[in-house]
Amino acid sequence: MAKSKILIIGGTGASIGKYIVEASAKAGHPTFALVRESTVSDPVKGKLIENFKNLGVTVLIGDLYNHESLVKAIKQVDVVIAPLGAQQFGDQDKIITAIKEAGNVKRFFPSEFGTDVDRNHAVEPAKSAFETKVKIRRAIEAEGIPYTYVVNNCFAGFFLPTLAQPGVFAPPPPKDKVVIYGDGNAKAIFNNEVDIATYTIRAVDDPRTLNKILYVKPPKNIYSFNELVALWEKKIGKTLEKTFIPEEKLLKDIEGSPFPVNIILAINHSAFVHGDQTNFEIEPSFGVEASELYPDVKYSTVEEYLEQFV
Amino acid sequence: MAKSKILIIGGTGASIGKYIVEASAKAGHPTFALVRESTVSDPVKGKLIENFKNLGVTVLIGDLYNHESLVKAIKQVDVVIAPLGAQQFGDQDKIITAIKEAGNVKRFFPSEFGTDVDRNHAVEPAKSAFETKVKIRRAIEAEGIPYTYVVNNCFAGFFLPTLAQPGVFAPPPPKDKVVIYGDGNAKAIFNNEVDIATYTIRAVDDPRTLNKILYVKPPKNIYSFNELVALWEKKIGKTLEKTFIPEEKLLKDIEGSPFPVNIILAINHSAFVHGDQTNFEIEPSFGVEASELYPDVKYSTVEEYLEQFV
Repeated sequence: MAKSKILIIGGTGASIGKYIVEASAKAGHPTFALVRESTVSDPVKGKLIENFKNLGVTVLIGDLYNHESLVKAIKQVDVVIAPLGAQQFGDQDKIITAIKEAGNVKRFFPSEFGTDVDRNHAVEPAKSAFETKVKIRRAIEAEGIPYTYVVNNCFAGFFLPTLAQPGVFAPPPPKDKVVIYGDGNAKAIFNNEVDIATYTIRAVDDPRTLNKILYVKPPKNIYSFNELVALWEKKIGKTLEKTFIPEEKLLKDIEGSPFPVNIILAINHSAFVHGDQTNFEIEPSFGVEASELYPDVKYSTVEEYLEQFV
Repeated sequence: MAKSKILIIGGTGASIGKYIVEASAKAGHPTFALVRESTVSDPVKGKLIENFKNLGVTVLIGDLYNHESLVKAIKQVDVVIAPLGAQQFGDQDKIITAIKEAGNVKRFFPSEFGTDVDRNHAVEPAKSAFETKVKIRRAIEAEGIPYTYVVNNCFAGFFLPTLAQPGVFAPPPPKDKVVIYGDGNAKAIFNNEVDIATYTIRAVDDPRTLNKILYVKPPKNIYSFNELVALWEKKIGKTLEKTFIPEEKLLKDIEGSPFPVNIILAINHSAFVHGDQTNFEIEPSFGVEASELYPDVKYSTVEEYLEQFV
């Protein structure tokens, strides 16, 4: 079977977009990236686009907000993946409209790549961002567009370099004192971006992922915060001083913090206090698990990931 | 003259929204806050809404995405202020449509509260966020809606508690080593959120701010990064070890960092390397300056702000 042609909208995104473009090209899919003209000349993103071309990616000039360019790009492919930033979550209705008009799309992967927004109990300001994703899910389903929602839980590259310490977004993980959300017992899931992209591209032509949530929940990457800290302590051969933040205090901190600390803390509250990544069963009616579907993918583990910071 | 009735959409925002609601109520404007039903029951935002009620604010239940609720809220007031998060910048077209339908609005303050997006040279991913604001400016002007764009430059509460150190979003400012963007000589502007809100509310009924950009650029809050570090060193009585990040390196760091570090670094690049907050003259044709218009407002200074961290 010929490999589907894939269009990525939001492929220059640093969080996950660029990994998906690379995984698609490397897997041999004819790969198209829709980028704005102004992005090509951007000193930061321009180089990334050059890398894409070196991998054989076809760069199409267009814009999410230019309907004609969107339809034209979509008509050239079979599958659309939209790893867009939070700012564009709501604007995916424009992609839905374009997919309907183009009429040829076999699968749409909207901007998910996070927690399962249909099974979540986040507080504001994370709640609103998640609700926007829910709205797009319902619109896709109402239009009868074939879909896969990739729920990869925590990006390793975002959470592990700092052990999700409040207000800190640069490595290394703490080597003296560590803050733990709630009692530290809720389980969360941490996945490497390269693996998330690999699983996403595997799902493209797989009938088992059609109209399903693809959960990335490999057994070696499920950790409670306490277990994560214990693993890190073992790696650096040192016991850290631990401060547990009670939920009530965390909610006050969310309220009192400016963006982006407030939304990150709200996401941490959902993942590490509520346990929203693991507090439900994946039922075959709505979901499948990536490491079970693709056991040949050698995913990288949390344990391996932390090694670079020792 | 009776004080205009003000509706705030996005008033529970922690960055600036809540300060605007409070400033409006305290200045004696009949003040209305549009909030979603789900926000009222949110443990974090719910308390804030209780505080609003205690200040005499009328809380209206509605939603940016519910046209009817929006028009109904707007019809009750004279002025609309929309301090929305980046995720909703583009969706302000819904407010524009509702203002046109309501037909009674004397002034609209869209979600600005940052840099002057018409005079900016940011790289991605900040560039896209700024372009969305530009698009909304042009839509407001095309519809002939009376406006004021508040350009307050840096929020003190976001930048000063860490001296904008890369990847760090929690106080205190550095006491040993400090990172300086570029050569540290470009000038930026740092304003306290309470002052920004005060100036915004002053502008509401002021004909001098009609269809103008209101720049918040008080003389005591303009600092180059080098001057800011020198001020901080003087306060703590200690010389810091300085690392200058050349622009080329900073651009690479932006490319290699996950959200939100990438967008924050791109904003820092624009403000502290390009000097985009100060590298143009404010012309009377498009702008006015807040501390000149309202010299009786005793704004708080960067010097006072840093005192709390000594």
